[in-house]
Amino acid sequence: MESVITDDFAPLAQALQDRAAVEDGYSAQLAVYHRGALVLSHSVGEHLSGDALTCVFSCTKGLSALVIALLVQDGLIDPVAPITDYWPEFGTHGKGKLSVGEVLSHQAGVLGVPGGVPSQVLLNSSEYAKILATMPSIWPLGQNIVGYHAITMGVLMEELVRRVTGKELKEVFEERIRKPLGVDAYIGQDDSLEPRYRDVLPAAPAEPAFFDPFSPAGLAVNSASGFALDSGPVYNWHELANSRQVRRLGPASMGGVADAQSLAAIYAASFGPVPSLGAARGFLSEDTWSRVSAELVYGHDRTNGLLQAFALGFMKATARNDYGSIFAYGHDGANSSLAFADPAYQLGFAYIPSRNEGEKSISTGVQLSQLARQVVIGKMMQAKG
Amino acid sequence: MESVITDDFAPLAQALQDRAAVEDGYSAQLAVYHRGALVLSHSVGEHLSGDALTCVFSCTKGLSALVIALLVQDGLIDPVAPITDYWPEFGTHGKGKLSVGEVLSHQAGVLGVPGGVPSQVLLNSSEYAKILATMPSIWPLGQNIVGYHAITMGVLMEELVRRVTGKELKEVFEERIRKPLGVDAYIGQDDSLEPRYRDVLPAAPAEPAFFDPFSPAGLAVNSASGFALDSGPVYNWHELANSRQVRRLGPASMGGVADAQSLAAIYAASFGPVPSLGAARGFLSEDTWSRVSAELVYGHDRTNGLLQAFALGFMKATARNDYGSIFAYGHDGANSSLAFADPAYQLGFAYIPSRNEGEKSISTGVQLSQLARQVVIGKMMQAKG
Amino acid sequence: MESVITDDFAPLAQALQDRAAVEDGYSAQLAVYHRGALVLSHSVGEHLSGDALTCVFSCTKGLSALVIALLVQDGLIDPVAPITDYWPEFGTHGKGKLSVGEVLSHQAGVLGVPGGVPSQVLLNSSEYAKILATMPSIWPLGQNIVGYHAITMGVLMEELVRRVTGKELKEVFEERIRKPLGVDAYIGQDDSLEPRYRDVLPAAPAEPAFFDPFSPAGLAVNSASGFALDSGPVYNWHELANSRQVRRLGPASMGGVADAQSLAAIYAASFGPVPSLGAARGFLSEDTWSRVSAELVYGHDRTNGLLQAFALGFMKATARNDYGSIFAYGHDGANSSLAFADPAYQLGFAYIPSRNEGEKSISTGVQLSQLARQVVIGKMMQAKG
Repeated sequence: MESVITDDFAPLAQALQDRAAVEDGYSAQLAVYHRGALVLSHSVGEHLSGDALTCVFSCTKGLSALVIALLVQDGLIDPVAPITDYWPEFGTHGKGKLSVGEVLSHQAGVLGVPGGVPSQVLLNSSEYAKILATMPSIWPLGQNIVGYHAITMGVLMEELVRRVTGKELKEVFEERIRKPLGVDAYIGQDDSLEPRYRDVLPAAPAEPAFFDPFSPAGLAVNSASGFALDSGPVYNWHELANSRQVRRLGPASMGGVADAQSLAAIYAASFGPVPSLGAARGFLSEDTWSRVSAELVYGHDRTNGLLQAFALGFMKATARNDYGSIFAYGHDGANSSLAFADPAYQLGFAYIPSRNEGEKSISTGVQLSQLARQVVIGKMMQAKG
Repeated sequence: MESVITDDFAPLAQALQDRAAVEDGYSAQLAVYHRGALVLSHSVGEHLSGDALTCVFSCTKGLSALVIALLVQDGLIDPVAPITDYWPEFGTHGKGKLSVGEVLSHQAGVLGVPGGVPSQVLLNSSEYAKILATMPSIWPLGQNIVGYHAITMGVLMEELVRRVTGKELKEVFEERIRKPLGVDAYIGQDDSLEPRYRDVLPAAPAEPAFFDPFSPAGLAVNSASGFALDSGPVYNWHELANSRQVRRLGPASMGGVADAQSLAAIYAASFGPVPSLGAARGFLSEDTWSRVSAELVYGHDRTNGLLQAFALGFMKATARNDYGSIFAYGHDGANSSLAFADPAYQLGFAYIPSRNEGEKSISTGVQLSQLARQVVIGKMMQAKG
Repeated sequence: MESVITDDFAPLAQALQDRAAVEDGYSAQLAVYHRGALVLSHSVGEHLSGDALTCVFSCTKGLSALVIALLVQDGLIDPVAPITDYWPEFGTHGKGKLSVGEVLSHQAGVLGVPGGVPSQVLLNSSEYAKILATMPSIWPLGQNIVGYHAITMGVLMEELVRRVTGKELKEVFEERIRKPLGVDAYIGQDDSLEPRYRDVLPAAPAEPAFFDPFSPAGLAVNSASGFALDSGPVYNWHELANSRQVRRLGPASMGGVADAQSLAAIYAASFGPVPSLGAARGFLSEDTWSRVSAELVYGHDRTNGLLQAFALGFMKATARNDYGSIFAYGHDGANSSLAFADPAYQLGFAYIPSRNEGEKSISTGVQLSQLARQVVIGKMMQAKG
């Protein structure tokens, strides 16, 4: 990442530094684009300094949703069409009545497979998609129940892209988004970048709560089978993310590798011009980003009981997760990362810490997004006079 | 207000006095009608003493809903009819499938305008209604999502009344409710009453939380534009309420001016006789108040995440907001006021403090309503034997 | 109960003993079947020791739901059919559009009668069913609102069984479940067992919160009328449960009398063989238990605001009430009892304490169920190698 601190956004850099001063071992990247210009690109701590890249977990889902958005813009995917228009085999057990939008907003209830799937399935999206197609929903359809498909959302998006383009989602991402912008955000990380990769660090050890592998949340993370990689068994999320096998593959749900500046750049370039990247206009039209960011479901998640709202693969802001306006589209990740676009404020934003920061009433990423919005609001009011 | 303390309800007056004894500057009005008789009318503290009137914020919505109820009783409005039967222009963006009841129970998702509307629109209900008619919902319709239309609910009610009567809501309120009962509760306060008006006081300063003007909650209070009144810009709710311009206009969402005794009297007279006011029967029949108080939606509010239930413009009691029985209909207000009818207990109730009391697990108004119900339950049990 | 402590499940017995050592007067029974074998049957404290039986409150609903499940298996009840196929009189006020499944998953909104019903109705299921059939729902139907029918769920289940079998639910329970298994779990307890009955003890006195008898929660427990039994008036739940009249009658909602070993045995025998009881296969086929344990509704309960999920009369586990897997079916009770089957872990489980243990973030029963699942997971992993 470059190091850029403009006066207006300096308070965000200061907030990072203040925290680094008091929290031992804290390291994080933060980047903000405003009106198409890079107004902040800053890292603190050694771990994520310099040209560091790291796994961004479910922020990857946001990048994948941008691929879906492009295909919507191309006219290849209609969010209100039945999912079976594109994937007929998915229509078993009454799932044929689900629209594409319902499936991509975490309403399908195919969170995983009881007992888990072996890693050769977990890491083979086509195979896993075949299994999900045959499964019943674990909740009653037609009630707009939402539950976080932590892993299988990636499989669902990948299969949909495969069906309408004949390509892998990560190929479309590379061709249509990453390469044109020339940014460092990869779905499927090349081994040549390995020297820049920094491990996701283990979170501070918490009191181990019981976690039922056959519960909705347990299904969603395949916890009954766990992860047997080429290099041996893996027991937790940060080890999974750090596995070269997984990053090379690039699962659309969680396998992305990036720095904060690149994530912020992509989101900024999704809705508006970013001259420094040679992007003369957003790669999504206003009509497209309005459609794909429209809220599709709101409720208490069946896996964890928390208030959630989703659009077409994107997480929406809520009173609990106040990361942006009603126009914002983005995603957070299990390492407490957060990246989003907010056209209301003309912001592209990304925050990536070196490790999961635990549950708080307001996450660090959300706090920093609030600071960013306050800065923009101040500038708006100044402009008004 | 008169000063009336009957023995049975004396514990409520005592509760107010106990609080005034320990909370510096506390001032409030409390009034209760039971079985059509004024059983409590009491104020503590200087600010709201004597013949004081003050703004009752969203308690105004309850008064407005009583106007709607009268028009339902007249056969002019059918709650289950499509809103477009009365307001065809409202049916854009799929909003034509909404019933009157869905619109008036905060399900339409037209919370406000991104970026806000200027005050000349905000204070011109017909103009604002035209804009709302053209807007899409910010959430998916057909899922019974509820979100508090803090300002626009008044506009929606006003336009509906305009469409079916050719009059302004406040005119119908004056003719059909206020004047016949001869009470001091006004939607559109005459300047002649200005000497009796007491300002809503600023709430104790709280740590300023970030509040996104483009969030659902921000849209709902027009916070991107704020309020530029004839007298100059206004920055917060109590200043808005205290503005003579606003009170003279009387927006149906929040512009009402009253004392507690009058609010309690209106609610008491809505379902039963109040001989002291010359009302030989309730102005709503049992059939009518049953219909308009029937719950239409229950869920976590999209603006603030709190559990809410609404009927036809009225707030319903829930486990979180336990102000009355399943038959109760009323509304609270941003100054922590609360007014309702509860036919189960034959109660008309109103509490108005001089300033917002902050969020508590149980609001003062709800606590006092519980005391009132306990008194009535005690009398019921005595009557049984 | 026998006294059985196998090595694997000894930690559960230890947890009970640890608690008994620090909590004065603590007494409880705990029993676990795993793979059809009794692996734990243990009691602590004097009150529920030896051959003690006690009232299991709403755990009775789980037993009743097992009766319904048998009738589903028999082809006598179709969960997706309209309730009026079996009970035409129930279809008033739009309730005819409800399916059997919606009614038995607490979605009908006939929680009770405003003002309560007299005890001669409360304890006469046929009479009470007639009244419920004529009532409107207290919430809007078609929105999948859920609210706990604490008492009337038993009446609804009893009437349904009556309609399709001509028998009382408790008769079918006795013939098809209790007698074949030879266990000590009764719906309608014979006077001859009276010497073994141990009173449900009063809970530790809590600060009396106001409880509105006309609220949804108040309706649900008939609190406006209370309970006038042959022996005199009864003022709270433990007295009701302890009344010989009530236990003799055996209301399907809360009148069951059992020990923990018998409840665990019944659940174990519902899905698999229990050789020690002469049960060569589960009395429900996998197809049946899958159907009746399928989730039918998920949401915040209209009576108490808590997250709930229900299947066909059974309570489902949620993030808040994490008692088992997505396959688990069971019920808890107002005395903090909990009993369930979990085919994912091949468990039948029951915990019965001598008194209500108050609200905690995790109930004791749930904690013990987590311990049981941890033991089974450990054995599964051992088996895998």
